[in-house]
Amino acid sequence: MKKKFDLNPIIKTLQKVLPQAQKSIALHEPQFDGKEWAYVKKCLDSGWVSSVGKYVSLFEKQLAEYTGIKHVIAVVNGTAALHICLQLAGVRAGDEVLMPTLTFVATANAVSYCGAVPHFADSDEKTLGLDPLKLGDYLKDITELRTEGCFNKKSGRRIKAVVPMHTFGHPVDMEPLLDVCQKFGLVLIEDAAESMGSLYKGYHTGSWGRLSVLSFNGNKIITTGGGGAILTNDTSLPALAKHLTTQAKLPHPWAFNHDLVGYNYRMPNINAALGCAQLEKLPEYIRQKRALALRYQEAFTGIEGVKIFKEADFARSNYWLNVLLLDKEYSCERNKLLELTNNQGIMTRPSWTLMHKLIMYEDCPRMSLACAEDLERRLINIPSSAVLTDLNIVNSTFTEERQG
Amino acid sequence: MKKKFDLNPIIKTLQKVLPQAQKSIALHEPQFDGKEWAYVKKCLDSGWVSSVGKYVSLFEKQLAEYTGIKHVIAVVNGTAALHICLQLAGVRAGDEVLMPTLTFVATANAVSYCGAVPHFADSDEKTLGLDPLKLGDYLKDITELRTEGCFNKKSGRRIKAVVPMHTFGHPVDMEPLLDVCQKFGLVLIEDAAESMGSLYKGYHTGSWGRLSVLSFNGNKIITTGGGGAILTNDTSLPALAKHLTTQAKLPHPWAFNHDLVGYNYRMPNINAALGCAQLEKLPEYIRQKRALALRYQEAFTGIEGVKIFKEADFARSNYWLNVLLLDKEYSCERNKLLELTNNQGIMTRPSWTLMHKLIMYEDCPRMSLACAEDLERRLINIPSSAVLTDLNIVNSTFTEERQG
Repeated sequence: MKKKFDLNPIIKTLQKVLPQAQKSIALHEPQFDGKEWAYVKKCLDSGWVSSVGKYVSLFEKQLAEYTGIKHVIAVVNGTAALHICLQLAGVRAGDEVLMPTLTFVATANAVSYCGAVPHFADSDEKTLGLDPLKLGDYLKDITELRTEGCFNKKSGRRIKAVVPMHTFGHPVDMEPLLDVCQKFGLVLIEDAAESMGSLYKGYHTGSWGRLSVLSFNGNKIITTGGGGAILTNDTSLPALAKHLTTQAKLPHPWAFNHDLVGYNYRMPNINAALGCAQLEKLPEYIRQKRALALRYQEAFTGIEGVKIFKEADFARSNYWLNVLLLDKEYSCERNKLLELTNNQGIMTRPSWTLMHKLIMYEDCPRMSLACAEDLERRLINIPSSAVLTDLNIVNSTFTEERQG
Repeated sequence: MKKKFDLNPIIKTLQKVLPQAQKSIALHEPQFDGKEWAYVKKCLDSGWVSSVGKYVSLFEKQLAEYTGIKHVIAVVNGTAALHICLQLAGVRAGDEVLMPTLTFVATANAVSYCGAVPHFADSDEKTLGLDPLKLGDYLKDITELRTEGCFNKKSGRRIKAVVPMHTFGHPVDMEPLLDVCQKFGLVLIEDAAESMGSLYKGYHTGSWGRLSVLSFNGNKIITTGGGGAILTNDTSLPALAKHLTTQAKLPHPWAFNHDLVGYNYRMPNINAALGCAQLEKLPEYIRQKRALALRYQEAFTGIEGVKIFKEADFARSNYWLNVLLLDKEYSCERNKLLELTNNQGIMTRPSWTLMHKLIMYEDCPRMSLACAEDLERRLINIPSSAVLTDLNIVNSTFTEERQG
């Protein structure tokens, strides 16, 4: 029989951590308290607002420096970045691509754009990301290695790549996943859309894949309005990545020739100008967001039935979105908690609907997804903006003064 | 035998029309002399820079008012707009889509994204766009009408749609094209990427198609950095267009559910803020660009071997890019003229390489393309920025004062 469960302590703890002054608290909102305006104005004054311009190359250079990944190509968004990475990885129509079922739909959609088929893998409760050990065991059973690659014995299709996603900023356990990729001849593409600034064993997420992807959508830790990037240490790839993202136009002072079906995927200069300013603030945002996560962890210690998800030992997470996990026996309370919090102006949300449950992907191949399904039932994202740390301090001081 | 041809009068005439003061003159550059800064700053201050925000809906509303087309969906660029329009038109993998061979590669690429096949049509020398009469005659020969639609007897594929493109801003002759579409059951999608502000028989280009496309790339008459729009008067389409461009997420206060393979194609708010300011200046830019076109036409009157392309009687063109046409017997001088002008800092360019000559489209079906091939040999785009009109006036005055 289900235990009776009181949600009030959870609400009260959230209220304790979050600023009282605001009417409603977003899940994640950006801050523009750096040189955003100065750079955007400079960009407008230069007349170069489109995909050719100095901020695009500057942003790429600065992203390379920050992440330690050699080559960066700035694009219109993370979805576009994934699409190009899959093509560069050699994913072709009819291939399968492994990915977690617990991800945002863009990961699966990008595979569809290539005419390929997503193949869903389970999650690791230590990281919320793809479980490399379970994946290795599964592939041992279902695949056959041929000279043309790794084949799914059941579907007959080639499995070409794996796309781990660093969920809510928490790095996947990459070393064992690399082993799996090597063993089965799979190309590793890291979907680091949510993990800008997150490290795995001291290196930036995205450093292990042959290719990786960042996103700078408005809800991310830093934003360019809409934007994304392709990252790679493989020097054979950036020229083709740039070519594919610029309609495959061959360089010439005036002639228009194209040698491939390309895309209009380059990031406009005005968005890159915003990105350069945001990137300068990233270390501060990470500090603020990690402080907020710690605050949540402390505040929820001893609260019955829930815990705040903590980064693994090998990880330094950007804590993009904080995760509150209900104990298994209380998962039935998830929707009630979502309703209560949202009604009170504290924006929360559940995990994305798992990919294998979406109508367009329900027939795709998959392993047992028990951990992901368990996480989906129990997981709630809670407000995580960097600004909440400082607002809260301001707010506490203010309250003390009024009380004093 | 070829006549000896002196290019100097052409260069001198260009120099007469264009400002002398500048070191080099772009083919087309944007102006930010309106409220661009004010709106972009307001957008940054609001914190809403991404695809949800008031400038996106305002820009859409103002575009609808300006064009007289009921529904507008702002997207990341014209290519994305074309991709979605083709899907909304029911273009499926294996279909054929008619389009001019004289177009920018995005028109053909968008068809490829759908797994469909471009089918190239010839140009009309009155408009530089698709020739509707020639197309009608051709379709009579090669198609068979079945209950499932119009089929290409040779390839066996269904021909689903026609995508005329308003070349360099000059409207295609739409009424006879509409007749062809009705006769053969083809969906009409107008690629108005270049013709923002251009009218056909008093109505904005894009008003005839079931769907149409605008572009606000940095080289267009107005720009959002990168951007485009889907336009339609068909009230059954905008909801699905929005849905497809926002990853097909079903509306819900917190849950993430998706029911189709969607795209990350919405225009970010910061780009829309720029668009709102640019749109306010459009009438002025059109006036300036039409004045420049007239100036070219007057200056080149009587110059041997060339003429400036003039809008058809039924058109009011935005004269996005002015066109200099060499007489047929002098087409062999095109490359020399391109070299001379570009070397002197007057940026010019030839027509795009015709689509059927690109390696990825050379095997696509096509009709006789004699007119397009003739135009390609003779056509040169010359500097056309709106600002050139006023600069020139300033410059002339300045010269007169110095001389006076």
